Amino acid sequence: MNETMLALVKPAAAPGARLERVPVPFVGPNDVLIRVRAATICGTDLHIYRWDPWAQKRMHPPLVFGHEFSGDVVAIGSAVDSVAVGEYVSAESHIVCGRCYACRAGANHVCRNVQIIGVDRAGCFAEYIAMPAANIWKNDPTMPAAIASAQEPFGNAVHTAFATSLTAKRVLITGCGPIGLFTIAIAAAAGAGRIFATDLQLHRLEMGHKMGATDLIDARSDVVAAILQATEGEGVDVLLEMSGSQGAIEQGFKSLRPGGFAALLGLPESPLMSFDLTNEIVFKGATVYGVFGRKMFETWYQTRGLLQSGKVDISPVISHHMPLEQYEQAFQLMLSGEADKVALYPNGMMYAP
Amino acid sequence: MNETMLALVKPAAAPGARLERVPVPFVGPNDVLIRVRAATICGTDLHIYRWDPWAQKRMHPPLVFGHEFSGDVVAIGSAVDSVAVGEYVSAESHIVCGRCYACRAGANHVCRNVQIIGVDRAGCFAEYIAMPAANIWKNDPTMPAAIASAQEPFGNAVHTAFATSLTAKRVLITGCGPIGLFTIAIAAAAGAGRIFATDLQLHRLEMGHKMGATDLIDARSDVVAAILQATEGEGVDVLLEMSGSQGAIEQGFKSLRPGGFAALLGLPESPLMSFDLTNEIVFKGATVYGVFGRKMFETWYQTRGLLQSGKVDISPVISHHMPLEQYEQAFQLMLSGEADKVALYPNGMMYAP
Amino acid sequence: MNETMLALVKPAAAPGARLERVPVPFVGPNDVLIRVRAATICGTDLHIYRWDPWAQKRMHPPLVFGHEFSGDVVAIGSAVDSVAVGEYVSAESHIVCGRCYACRAGANHVCRNVQIIGVDRAGCFAEYIAMPAANIWKNDPTMPAAIASAQEPFGNAVHTAFATSLTAKRVLITGCGPIGLFTIAIAAAAGAGRIFATDLQLHRLEMGHKMGATDLIDARSDVVAAILQATEGEGVDVLLEMSGSQGAIEQGFKSLRPGGFAALLGLPESPLMSFDLTNEIVFKGATVYGVFGRKMFETWYQTRGLLQSGKVDISPVISHHMPLEQYEQAFQLMLSGEADKVALYPNGMMYAP
Amino acid sequence: MNETMLALVKPAAAPGARLERVPVPFVGPNDVLIRVRAATICGTDLHIYRWDPWAQKRMHPPLVFGHEFSGDVVAIGSAVDSVAVGEYVSAESHIVCGRCYACRAGANHVCRNVQIIGVDRAGCFAEYIAMPAANIWKNDPTMPAAIASAQEPFGNAVHTAFATSLTAKRVLITGCGPIGLFTIAIAAAAGAGRIFATDLQLHRLEMGHKMGATDLIDARSDVVAAILQATEGEGVDVLLEMSGSQGAIEQGFKSLRPGGFAALLGLPESPLMSFDLTNEIVFKGATVYGVFGRKMFETWYQTRGLLQSGKVDISPVISHHMPLEQYEQAFQLMLSGEADKVALYPNGMMYAP
Repeated sequence: MNETMLALVKPAAAPGARLERVPVPFVGPNDVLIRVRAATICGTDLHIYRWDPWAQKRMHPPLVFGHEFSGDVVAIGSAVDSVAVGEYVSAESHIVCGRCYACRAGANHVCRNVQIIGVDRAGCFAEYIAMPAANIWKNDPTMPAAIASAQEPFGNAVHTAFATSLTAKRVLITGCGPIGLFTIAIAAAAGAGRIFATDLQLHRLEMGHKMGATDLIDARSDVVAAILQATEGEGVDVLLEMSGSQGAIEQGFKSLRPGGFAALLGLPESPLMSFDLTNEIVFKGATVYGVFGRKMFETWYQTRGLLQSGKVDISPVISHHMPLEQYEQAFQLMLSGEADKVALYPNGMMYAP
Repeated sequence: MNETMLALVKPAAAPGARLERVPVPFVGPNDVLIRVRAATICGTDLHIYRWDPWAQKRMHPPLVFGHEFSGDVVAIGSAVDSVAVGEYVSAESHIVCGRCYACRAGANHVCRNVQIIGVDRAGCFAEYIAMPAANIWKNDPTMPAAIASAQEPFGNAVHTAFATSLTAKRVLITGCGPIGLFTIAIAAAAGAGRIFATDLQLHRLEMGHKMGATDLIDARSDVVAAILQATEGEGVDVLLEMSGSQGAIEQGFKSLRPGGFAALLGLPESPLMSFDLTNEIVFKGATVYGVFGRKMFETWYQTRGLLQSGKVDISPVISHHMPLEQYEQAFQLMLSGEADKVALYPNGMMYAP
Repeated sequence: MNETMLALVKPAAAPGARLERVPVPFVGPNDVLIRVRAATICGTDLHIYRWDPWAQKRMHPPLVFGHEFSGDVVAIGSAVDSVAVGEYVSAESHIVCGRCYACRAGANHVCRNVQIIGVDRAGCFAEYIAMPAANIWKNDPTMPAAIASAQEPFGNAVHTAFATSLTAKRVLITGCGPIGLFTIAIAAAAGAGRIFATDLQLHRLEMGHKMGATDLIDARSDVVAAILQATEGEGVDVLLEMSGSQGAIEQGFKSLRPGGFAALLGLPESPLMSFDLTNEIVFKGATVYGVFGRKMFETWYQTRGLLQSGKVDISPVISHHMPLEQYEQAFQLMLSGEADKVALYPNGMMYAP
Repeated sequence: MNETMLALVKPAAAPGARLERVPVPFVGPNDVLIRVRAATICGTDLHIYRWDPWAQKRMHPPLVFGHEFSGDVVAIGSAVDSVAVGEYVSAESHIVCGRCYACRAGANHVCRNVQIIGVDRAGCFAEYIAMPAANIWKNDPTMPAAIASAQEPFGNAVHTAFATSLTAKRVLITGCGPIGLFTIAIAAAAGAGRIFATDLQLHRLEMGHKMGATDLIDARSDVVAAILQATEGEGVDVLLEMSGSQGAIEQGFKSLRPGGFAALLGLPESPLMSFDLTNEIVFKGATVYGVFGRKMFETWYQTRGLLQSGKVDISPVISHHMPLEQYEQAFQLMLSGEADKVALYPNGMMYAP
């Protein structure tokens, strides 16, 4: 193995990124070293690339970023016996402490001391990445590299969609970005009776339709009226909020039936300026669940169940594939909205589908 | 309306049944009178027809039997304002007291004082039936009469399948009678990752495959070994027991993974002669749920969601259609196993599909 | 029975109330007529008395108000067979339609067509009240009349406290009005490990302590810091929000641990001007449940279980007892905060403890 | 540290045990070494001591046995950073693999590859024991050593009692051995409305009363009739089965109300010879949960919540305290039923209360 590797680095507290040669990561006794086949770009990576206020506050350059990937194990630490060299793997990107209250009481997805690769420590836009063996997820050898990489964000959608039963339900999914599109596909696979999807962009609504939404609504129109009319005045049973937009949140809750369930994954950039708790939660007897990360590893098993059975096909959402070296083009495609999701290949395009 | 009507009666404590003219039922202030379009035959009706020990113990002839039907409201009682003459309806066959603990605490499907039509009071193998308005379920006008009738037993399957989430799970369904077949279809619609089905009869397994089972296993073979092999030694996540056979119950529990979930609908005719509680429930940390009837009316809404969306098509299970007058042939078809389910038409075949 | 009765009426769209003689209510076929022993005053009645914006918008005078009571059945409608003359009863104050989606799917506490006595139709600050038999709850004959009346608001507390398991948990209850005090008592009975209570008024905190709170915090102090310090930085497992105050809601969510549960009963008078959904719900992986009314009749059985076993004693919260004629003094005592809860006796003080 | 230590060993495949000097256990990189303060005797230890069929089948002598203990950390492995020398700890006795499906999907209490100390590997009836750091539970320094040790079996009771909410419920606990007694105490702390307890031995029923049972029933009497009479014919809401006796299991299920919940911890020694699945589970719509071990570490946090708050006092159940050297007397006391639970002190009686 080379002593240095190619990696995409956020070099300093400013917009942009730079391809550099950096040392191959150190492999601790409980770690494994993975040669990256594919790494997919997430909205979080766009925040980092653009260096927006969230990134400025959270990240400390210089750092290799990227947190969605698949690859091959090329070395294991001295204490590792659960993973072997040569295995084809993906990884849970949240490294948890294992000893806080949340971790020990079955909720390690909200670990107080979580470290996220590509944000808090070195990420996967690189030829190699080191991960704790406990974070490794073994892939079916036939799974394409980009799909295997995208299991991480798909897992967010799985966590959201499995927060309540969707079978035979009327479901509203607000926001058709990649995770919203994944969620639509899961709702369809789970037998939702009707799947309403909203977005501001027409081509995203079209993708929503392709993934299984039955009713597409322009978020600028009267979403609430449209949904009430379509549901005999009842509203939807379930709201899955994927946009983080205050407008969508309001439309979503107003469209929710009494006794309904809402799972919230989208992140409003600032506190809501107005939220009608009385009418939208209390009087409605609603249940609301905040979705963060993935349940380790229940969500991953559900992910496997959906992908292996062929019930869900996420390949249409990964719209572009290119070598890591073309990272600038990749980020531009996503920033412009032209690409849904781009897969980068740090070790060459041989792994592209 | 005629003062008498044609009805299929269990006339005395002996095998068989007889077509007779009997008075049209009285309509109380809270009742509605329904002209029956279709009535489907259930396993319970076979027990009554054959006059087996269960029937001998439970039923008191003479009585019109049958409890699955659809039809048109032709009269309503003085206090009824929730149903109108002319509406096309089906009905929950369990008439509950509404005042026992179970009824008032959200579990009226296990009401202590339940009366079942066609068992405890006059049933639906007749031109007309009277039902409390509270039991009425309004149908989509486009739903075929036999499908509308079969919503009742389909509801048993819905209650079973919705006892836990099946999406992305490995599910074993033991028994491919009509309700087992319905359950297979629901599991498929709900996105189960893999659906194992067992039965003793080949043609039922074939029907199971048609309804969506992915793995068919002859119940006389080594079911447990087959399932463990197919699941990397783990076993299934969920057992849905629809047969009531001691052998199937044992196979089912032995095939269930640690931490798994079992819903039991099948009724063993006598107490199990051996049940390994220690290994199959306690050491496994299993959860077991007994399924009786349908949740009123949560199950009916779920039924609607599945049927209206087209996610489930139960028409193949209703294998035969004939006028009420041909009841003898109908019962023979079902007793012989030749028919999965037969629809009878007491008011003529005009309602047949 | 007299043809007219004494009743406390909101006569017109203005502050205040008036004692008048009005007709004894009509008893429909499914109704029962109750001679009121005791009626307790709720915060809602204060809104009506003061004629605040909520009351102006919701209520249409003239109307007898009051919705918490106990009494004796003196007449029953022709179709009633579940209640008998002479029985000592209380009543669920929400009259539900029984046919909307929520009603039929196990969530009738959020019925779309609910009618509340004393708000939407004639209430219980009167010698007699008519109620549907389905709303009747039969009392233990030994239960004091004011306690029996206060089961209704106590039920709100039960619904809130039973929304999740409190045993061995760290619980924060924001707001020590009557329902907050009831909730504290239930949390103590349920074995909560630690019960934090906040309020702005010292004497209410003292009542909170009397009811079982272990840690009392002035809501003007740094509540969040106090709770984090007391819980080794973790925060509480459960928030039960009973105040409706924006400040309390913020303090409550900031004090909630990752993965925690919040039940919200308090009603903010207007939409929250700021709510940090991202940090307080999504990143926390929190679950939030809106509490409205009581589950019929699961909550009432839980109420019975708590009161009959002697696990909870709510009598200290009913601080004053007086005849209906002294209603002005009663309302003043509550408006001033001097009384926690006042019981009125429309048929004389013979029923006072 | 001495190179050898005193330990109670099952030396060969025969009844009895022997005090021997054996090597102090090896401390691996992820282990800690604990000097044992107290170790309590469990029913499982009696099986091993008597060398009954279960023990003959499961255990492979020679082995130090015992699995309930508390003590002080005296050494830590090279990779341990979550536990420090000098800390006062207890331990989860089930060492799980962390990589099987159950382990990774939130159900590691039913790990397929579990190793139990004192059964599958060296136990705690010794001066020292080595444990994986991940199994360590840190104690409040003021907790008595025997109580700290008994947290392990108390945790079984906690797991059982927390399987459903007991507050305001009618609960039947069948079997008043140590874990049954613990369960009674938890049910009382959790605000159960009524706690029925059954056993064959009078002094155990008396202990049950002391721990909080409200109704004591001799298991040889007509338990079902007694419970139905006491509950107006309804039966109990919850059955917690702690005996493993076929008779108790039958009495328990027959006493359970429709829609009720049963948690089963007791282990029938052989398959039940008769079990009426149809009437006791299916027709009843019952939910049954098998209890094995403790949820890691949710159960331990609940244990802490109950013990630290003083809601539960388990000290009366630990009836005898003696040095490890008096092990023969200790086992005789428990085998005879004279002792509820005995605490042994391998490093002297200085830690006895």
